[in-house]
Order: sequence, then structure tokens, then C-alpha cells
Amino acid sequence: MRNLVEKSCFIFFLIFIICQSVLADKKSLRNQEPCKRLELYYHDILFDGTDLANATSAKATNETALGDFKFGMLIVFDDPITADNNLLSPPVARAQGFYFYDKKNDYNAWFAFTLVFNSTQYKGTLNIMGADLMAVETRDLSVVGGTGDFFMAKGIVTFHTDIFQGAKYFRLKWDIKLYECY
Amino acid sequence: MRNLVEKSCFIFFLIFIICQSVLADKKSLRNQEPCKRLELYYHDILFDGTDLANATSAKATNETALGDFKFGMLIVFDDPITADNNLLSPPVARAQGFYFYDKKNDYNAWFAFTLVFNSTQYKGTLNIMGADLMAVETRDLSVVGGTGDFFMAKGIVTFHTDIFQGAKYFRLKWDIKLYECY
Amino acid sequence: MRNLVEKSCFIFFLIFIICQSVLADKKSLRNQEPCKRLELYYHDILFDGTDLANATSAKATNETALGDFKFGMLIVFDDPITADNNLLSPPVARAQGFYFYDKKNDYNAWFAFTLVFNSTQYKGTLNIMGADLMAVETRDLSVVGGTGDFFMAKGIVTFHTDIFQGAKYFRLKWDIKLYECY
Repeated sequence: MRNLVEKSCFIFFLIFIICQSVLADKKSLRNQEPCKRLELYYHDILFDGTDLANATSAKATNETALGDFKFGMLIVFDDPITADNNLLSPPVARAQGFYFYDKKNDYNAWFAFTLVFNSTQYKGTLNIMGADLMAVETRDLSVVGGTGDFFMAKGIVTFHTDIFQGAKYFRLKWDIKLYECY
Repeated sequence: MRNLVEKSCFIFFLIFIICQSVLADKKSLRNQEPCKRLELYYHDILFDGTDLANATSAKATNETALGDFKFGMLIVFDDPITADNNLLSPPVARAQGFYFYDKKNDYNAWFAFTLVFNSTQYKGTLNIMGADLMAVETRDLSVVGGTGDFFMAKGIVTFHTDIFQGAKYFRLKWDIKLYECY
Repeated sequence: MRNLVEKSCFIFFLIFIICQSVLADKKSLRNQEPCKRLELYYHDILFDGTDLANATSAKATNETALGDFKFGMLIVFDDPITADNNLLSPPVARAQGFYFYDKKNDYNAWFAFTLVFNSTQYKGTLNIMGADLMAVETRDLSVVGGTGDFFMAKGIVTFHTDIFQGAKYFRLKWDIKLYECY
């Protein structure tokens, strides 16, 4: 009889451990390493009306009169993504989407776009949206979904401004961390 | 021998219970309480060309001729969020994003935006999108991601129109229910 | 004593199986059947300034001069969704949102919208975004959230162009596969 009690306790203990680990799996995602991580560079060359060959984005709307920081200007882009910070490096993906400026007393933007991969390494897309708080050193946006090699992905993209040459050209470093991979 | 059978049955039963609870965890999310809930108020003051100091949003595009309900008018906003319905209360967050009107025979809108928290209580963002079926008493949009204190969040935001003073000022009550928190 | 060892091994084995199945549940989502699947047709009739009765979408912005493929033209829509490819079939849902063209040397678009169901079969919404790589036979976008009957849904929508009659009318077949249902 004592043997039975001991074994039952042992079984309960094991079951308790399993339950804990299953729940912990969910709770500690924040502290886990990403299941996939990509560091990429985004290059945006705004069309000025003449540089048709080089430009990769264009204004769909003009800025409004609400402040002096282009509030309401919406830019559609099909921008090259490179693995290093050199604009002339072979693109590893395209970023297709838009951003607009949305602050009256400073530069601040909001992005929604798709990262389209079509290389030997990756085929598929990542869908991303969020605020680009340009005044902050690094800012986080959400990876809200993915397809192909990134099927049902979810995660965070950290934006860092690598260079800002007026409105004409700017480059962002993107640190993409996926926490749900399938 | 009978003892062994009994114990095996007991073990199977326990394992069955565990499996059930793990699966139920997934299935019954709908009936669970949110892991976090926030009730907030959104204030939108549309720029009329003169009220630069007060306005928090502006038209990026004009309405089209498709119907009489501003179809196609797109508004970019950087709006204050308060804990109560008083516009003059200290903001607890900003909502940065856009909405547009999208129905030819009634008012109806579509929103995508980021709720930016930067207070002692919360730091981080929630990314939200969905249809604002203005004719309905309450309507649900999706929280599709989050960052910082809202890392990888997912949930529902219920919109309720608190007041609608023409196009100039309107206020929404947002009941934010997160069902995935990490 | 030997009995005890045997039983312990047996228990460990069972526990191992459970852990495996719980983890596998997460890993093999990619190979699983969707928990819900819908095949729908999307009809877009672009307003030309005169066909107020029939049109279901309108240009909020004009195309830019960046290339010859309507780069930057943004269309807001409130389009009927039918169960078969007949425009005149009774709609089973509305698709409310926008798309814009975003490529300078070919047609290519980007969509974000809400699928609004309000029938006896379904009440609720699905929120969808992603790139519509029009040159590709089928292309995948993300279901990033849902409400009502589609509470917290996540999945993939595969777009297929069913017919493209210039800018005036086009029809897409949407194969919606949800992999997270609650």
C-alpha cells in the first residue's frame, strides 16, 4: 500500500511537471530566442518627377497644412531590401507597401507593407505594420502574418534609421525576430 | 495483477485529463476572460484649415463622387487617448494611423492604427485594424500584434461611438480585450 | 521491484508521447488541414464618374508619373462577395478596404481589408492584408485576425484572378484557409 502511495505521488509529480512546461512554453515566449532572425536593410528613393530609373517610391498624396512635418503625405513604395547597407548590393527581397507622415510637430511615420522574398534561400512573404516613431533610436513594429517559407509567422521588427538624406533617400536597418514559426 | 490494471486505468485517466485540458486551453479561448483588458477613449479633431493648435487629424484625400457619405476620404490621425471621456484629461496613449470612409449609401469606415503607450504604467504598442461599421451599436476590430509591454499580443477591440459632432469632432469608447499575452 | 521498473518505464513512455504530440501540434500546423475553409469570389467595379448605381469602388488618389502601371493609385472599396463567380448571385459578405498599385514596370497591388459576414451562416469579420503579386498565378495574403464567428482567426488567403476586364471590372477567386480557429 505504501508502494502505491509513493508511485501515485511520483506520477502526480510528473504530470505536474508536464503541465508546467506546457504552460511555461506560452508564458516565457518573451524571454525565448526568436525561432528565426533576419537582419536586412531597406532603401527608399522617393520619386522627384525626373529620376524614373532610380526611384522606388512615389507620393500618392501631398502633405497637408497641419504642421510643418509633411502630415498626411502618403508614399507608396516597392523598395529593394539588401543584406548589407549598400544600396547597390543584389536585393534579397522587395518591400511593397506604404507609409505616411502623421505628426504635426515632428517627423513621425506609420508603415504597412509586405516583405516579398523570391530567392533560392526564401520564397514567401512577411506582413508587417506599425508606428515608426522616428525620433526614437529603435522602434518596434509587428509581423502580423506570413506565407510560404514564413507560413503563419508572427514576431517583431525593430527599425533603426541607418541614414536619412532628406526626403530623397533614407535607409533603415530592420532586425526581424520571429517568435512563431511553423 | 488486479492492482496493476487498476493503476494503469488510473494513469490513463490522468493522461486523458491532461490531454483534454491542453486541447481545451486552445478551444475555449473564446469563453475565457481576456488576459488583459483596457477601456479607453479616442478623440478625433479634424483639421479645418485654421485650428492648427487643436486639430489632431487631417484629410489626406478628398471624398469622391461615389455617393454622399465621403466615400474615399482618407484621414491621417495622431489622436489623444484618455482613460475617461473628457478630451482634456491627460492622455494615456496616442493613436497613430488612418481611417477612410467606404460606403456609398451610409457612413462606414475602415481603421488601421497603432496605439502608442509611453507612460509609467505601459510602454509599448498595440497594432489594430478592421472595419468600423458605424451604423452598428458596437463593432469589433482585431488587435493583430503588439510590442513592448504588449509583446506579441492578440485580441479584439470593441468600438462604441460615444459622441459624433459632425465631421469636426467625434469620440469613441474602445474596449480592448487581449486573449494572448506573453 | 521489476514490476515497478516496468511500470515506470511505461509511464515515462506515455508522458513522452504526450509531450511529443503537444509539440507536434505546433510544429506540423503547416501540414495540417485548415480548421475552416471558404472559397469566395470578389467583384470590383471601379467608379468611372457616371455609374453610381453599379460601382462599388472609387479612386481616392490618382496614379503618379512613376511608370505606366498606375503606381500610387489607391482604390477604396466596399465590394460584394459571392459564393460562385456570378456577379449577380446574392452576396454572402462584403469586402471593405483598399488596394493600391505599387510597381513601376508591371501591374502589382497591395491589399488591406475586412471581410464582413452578416448572414444566417456567419456573423463576424476576417481581417486580411498582403501583397497581390498580380503576375503570379496564385498569391498568398495573410488573415491576421477575426471577430464574431471568426474570433481570433489566423490563416492564409490565396488570390487567383478569375477575370480582368481592364480597370473597370475584375474578379478574384479567394481560397481562405484558417489554421487557427477558436
